[in-house]
Amino acid sequence: MAKISIKIESRVLGEPNEIIVYIPKKIQAKMKSTGPKDEETGVDQAKVPYNVIYLLHGKNGDANAFFDFTNVMAYADKHEVITISTSVKNSFYTNMVYGERYFDYLSVEVPETLASLLNLNIDPMHTYILGYSMGGLGALKMGLTYPERFRGIASLSGSLRSMEENKRKIKDEDRRDLYLAFGDCEEISAQENDLFQLLEKAMEKQVNLPEIYLYCGRKDGLSEVNRAYHEYLEEKGVSHTYVEDDGGHEFERWDEQIKEYFKIIHK
Amino acid sequence: MAKISIKIESRVLGEPNEIIVYIPKKIQAKMKSTGPKDEETGVDQAKVPYNVIYLLHGKNGDANAFFDFTNVMAYADKHEVITISTSVKNSFYTNMVYGERYFDYLSVEVPETLASLLNLNIDPMHTYILGYSMGGLGALKMGLTYPERFRGIASLSGSLRSMEENKRKIKDEDRRDLYLAFGDCEEISAQENDLFQLLEKAMEKQVNLPEIYLYCGRKDGLSEVNRAYHEYLEEKGVSHTYVEDDGGHEFERWDEQIKEYFKIIHK
Amino acid sequence: MAKISIKIESRVLGEPNEIIVYIPKKIQAKMKSTGPKDEETGVDQAKVPYNVIYLLHGKNGDANAFFDFTNVMAYADKHEVITISTSVKNSFYTNMVYGERYFDYLSVEVPETLASLLNLNIDPMHTYILGYSMGGLGALKMGLTYPERFRGIASLSGSLRSMEENKRKIKDEDRRDLYLAFGDCEEISAQENDLFQLLEKAMEKQVNLPEIYLYCGRKDGLSEVNRAYHEYLEEKGVSHTYVEDDGGHEFERWDEQIKEYFKIIHK
Amino acid sequence: MAKISIKIESRVLGEPNEIIVYIPKKIQAKMKSTGPKDEETGVDQAKVPYNVIYLLHGKNGDANAFFDFTNVMAYADKHEVITISTSVKNSFYTNMVYGERYFDYLSVEVPETLASLLNLNIDPMHTYILGYSMGGLGALKMGLTYPERFRGIASLSGSLRSMEENKRKIKDEDRRDLYLAFGDCEEISAQENDLFQLLEKAMEKQVNLPEIYLYCGRKDGLSEVNRAYHEYLEEKGVSHTYVEDDGGHEFERWDEQIKEYFKIIHK
Repeated sequence: MAKISIKIESRVLGEPNEIIVYIPKKIQAKMKSTGPKDEETGVDQAKVPYNVIYLLHGKNGDANAFFDFTNVMAYADKHEVITISTSVKNSFYTNMVYGERYFDYLSVEVPETLASLLNLNIDPMHTYILGYSMGGLGALKMGLTYPERFRGIASLSGSLRSMEENKRKIKDEDRRDLYLAFGDCEEISAQENDLFQLLEKAMEKQVNLPEIYLYCGRKDGLSEVNRAYHEYLEEKGVSHTYVEDDGGHEFERWDEQIKEYFKIIHK
Repeated sequence: MAKISIKIESRVLGEPNEIIVYIPKKIQAKMKSTGPKDEETGVDQAKVPYNVIYLLHGKNGDANAFFDFTNVMAYADKHEVITISTSVKNSFYTNMVYGERYFDYLSVEVPETLASLLNLNIDPMHTYILGYSMGGLGALKMGLTYPERFRGIASLSGSLRSMEENKRKIKDEDRRDLYLAFGDCEEISAQENDLFQLLEKAMEKQVNLPEIYLYCGRKDGLSEVNRAYHEYLEEKGVSHTYVEDDGGHEFERWDEQIKEYFKIIHK
Repeated sequence: MAKISIKIESRVLGEPNEIIVYIPKKIQAKMKSTGPKDEETGVDQAKVPYNVIYLLHGKNGDANAFFDFTNVMAYADKHEVITISTSVKNSFYTNMVYGERYFDYLSVEVPETLASLLNLNIDPMHTYILGYSMGGLGALKMGLTYPERFRGIASLSGSLRSMEENKRKIKDEDRRDLYLAFGDCEEISAQENDLFQLLEKAMEKQVNLPEIYLYCGRKDGLSEVNRAYHEYLEEKGVSHTYVEDDGGHEFERWDEQIKEYFKIIHK
Repeated sequence: MAKISIKIESRVLGEPNEIIVYIPKKIQAKMKSTGPKDEETGVDQAKVPYNVIYLLHGKNGDANAFFDFTNVMAYADKHEVITISTSVKNSFYTNMVYGERYFDYLSVEVPETLASLLNLNIDPMHTYILGYSMGGLGALKMGLTYPERFRGIASLSGSLRSMEENKRKIKDEDRRDLYLAFGDCEEISAQENDLFQLLEKAMEKQVNLPEIYLYCGRKDGLSEVNRAYHEYLEEKGVSHTYVEDDGGHEFERWDEQIKEYFKIIHK
């Protein structure tokens, strides 16, 4: 295996950041140099794309959250999936109204950096994105903003509130974190961030939507919000998987779900 | 810039190890993806090789020694040189008689791993190797064993003892570290490790020798040993650079020498 | 929580090494400064010792193995246990006959280093040691060599071969790794390393033996060896816990066992 | 030596962050356990405080900036100084008007965390704070806000603009970074952040001011701003050291200055 930590001075953020790429042993063994010197490189092998998954952390998390609190390396090994993770602070995966442009960082700079530095063969039909909590929102936002890039989207206990609800929370609960990310939750912010609007826009594109997987436990405060998004998907006729159990908002459940999701990827 | 730390489970060593690759900002900007998607990639740019230097640590050191105790990142930035470093314990850059095969690790597994994972364009005419103390021995050993791979070799205060001297030290000073690496210093170990023999073998090959740069301070206990190797190079008619000053065996001097050597690379 | 990585230049090993200490959030909240300035420090609080566990990796592993391949951080959080881990290469937790003194490093230098640098309140009645595979051997060796220091020992799929068996393996299977660690498996090595002899010596001391927990799956190649040690403990009248299931030699099982063992600690 | 990296979930920031503490070999050797078990601990030794310096990074930097771009570890070793560093993003060492409370993090949570976890003996008479660029501002702000905690303050090429100038820059140059930190630069922000006001407040306290060391090169865009602060200190009759040379805004000069400053600490 190879666990690659890339520390960059992010041009978009104006800050250092870390990208972690985990390559399971079996994939590493298949990877061949594509440099100009290796003319005998197995051409066919080079064309076989690997399964890749972006892992998006929740609030208070960072690039290491999945490694620290789930067994994702074991699942990646078992099902031969490369994982990619990085840190976006508590940005809600936005270009923050008051803060840095974390969505541009994640959607533009990270893939460009990986494409330039690493010898990966990334293909949309083998690319997935998964997040928990705030990262569930991020996964859906990325996947619906760029549906042509992903085969599947998984949101685990995602913060899938509508922009309306965010607005209410900012006002009623003084949620400073939401305010820094979404500002006044106005039209322009909603167009970029509202998962309901993003779904509609994605459906208008002439591309297949990534397969959507939603999980939320019934003891989770976000349970209703997730059910609402599930119903919205149904209403729009978007086929998807919706999983409920008696879980709360906790890593133990996300670990189980990741284990399940990696099986799906592997199929 | 990108500071890439690659943690691998080394096949050769049967142990985890870390390879650190530092890519200065200006080189990173030039690097282009060579993936199947980027057909418009500037073909010419891809053919321009970068200057690359292997940095070999001394005893008690590891992959971070140069970053911790010298300003190598600043020199790398200034002169546009990619650095590569890893850890070989106190192996004297041997396939240890009693221990792991660190020379195979460094000379075979590390380059293969980098070629398979990273998108580097490594070219012998732009590849250098530098080490301090035990790493000076390592640099000369690598460079003379594989002269076709390197443009230049730099040994700073290198442990350039002959196998005879190692044998004596093991016997008289009970140098366990030398014993684990070189065993009885017999013929077979000497063929692989003796810098005097390695020079002769390199000269017999139909390749240009890398340019050799030797430094040792006059207050350094290895001063005589280095002068002896310098004289041997002269005797053999191998053009090289030999630098002496009043320094001891210390990072302060190595930092100065690295600064100078990176200027030479840049020319 | 605090995940503390301490990189030291080990005096015993003559090499850099890393010690990782994970302190769960709830324990961190209880910790108070004991510096000379904090005279008002809650005296009582300072006297409450924390549960601490040493985690010993197996072959090819290092200080990060438990974090990478098990959910130990989650269990540590849940049951309020501080974890300590470091790397001993493939030393079989010996002072290697051909190599470094890893047992001294682990049993002397690591505790001393932690005692001098960190503000921990370590107490034998709250100290445990657990290892998998080669680390299972290490845990029993440490716990039986210093029974007065530990409350409990857990060996998961431990390499609990007798010195006789090691000798046979070196001869018949050319096991170089065992040879570097145990040499000719002679009397002196056996006195230090043989778990059967170590148990007897521990029983002669006027101290309580730590509680021993043995696990090995029936599909594990080490199954017989573990059963033999279990029977030896029975024969000697040493009360202990012996757990078997249908598992193999794999992290998935060790993760389950760690989860169970941390519950025991918590009681 | 011990290089300690502490990763915490910051309570103040609601984000993970890293604190790096470097302990030179000679100090480590002197440190003794103060745990309840070590009653024979040399009482006198424990009372000798160590020289400690906080190192504050500039914009785009982080806890590693000094290690990566200067030889601070070598100077720390030579002059026996413990270094402490962490990351505050591009916060200008404020409790950001739009963002996190980095000043509280640095001035309250970091010292508390270190006091609770590490066995350091920190004493104001042996505590220093140094920063470059934005970190120069941070050093003066910390040192003048809490003069009773520091013996010396060093600002290297510090961003020592008055709040007036910040306001102008936000308006005329659209400096978003300054806006996120200082907002409208109103009275309340100025009281906390304006170095001119902070000096006056510090002078009103019944404590000795830390010794102030200012450096700025003449080719540095911040040269005038630094000279202005130097003149303000003179006007107020605050004795201080002011160093100018022909340098620009660059690590090469800061490395030289750090080397000099550590000599002063050592005296």
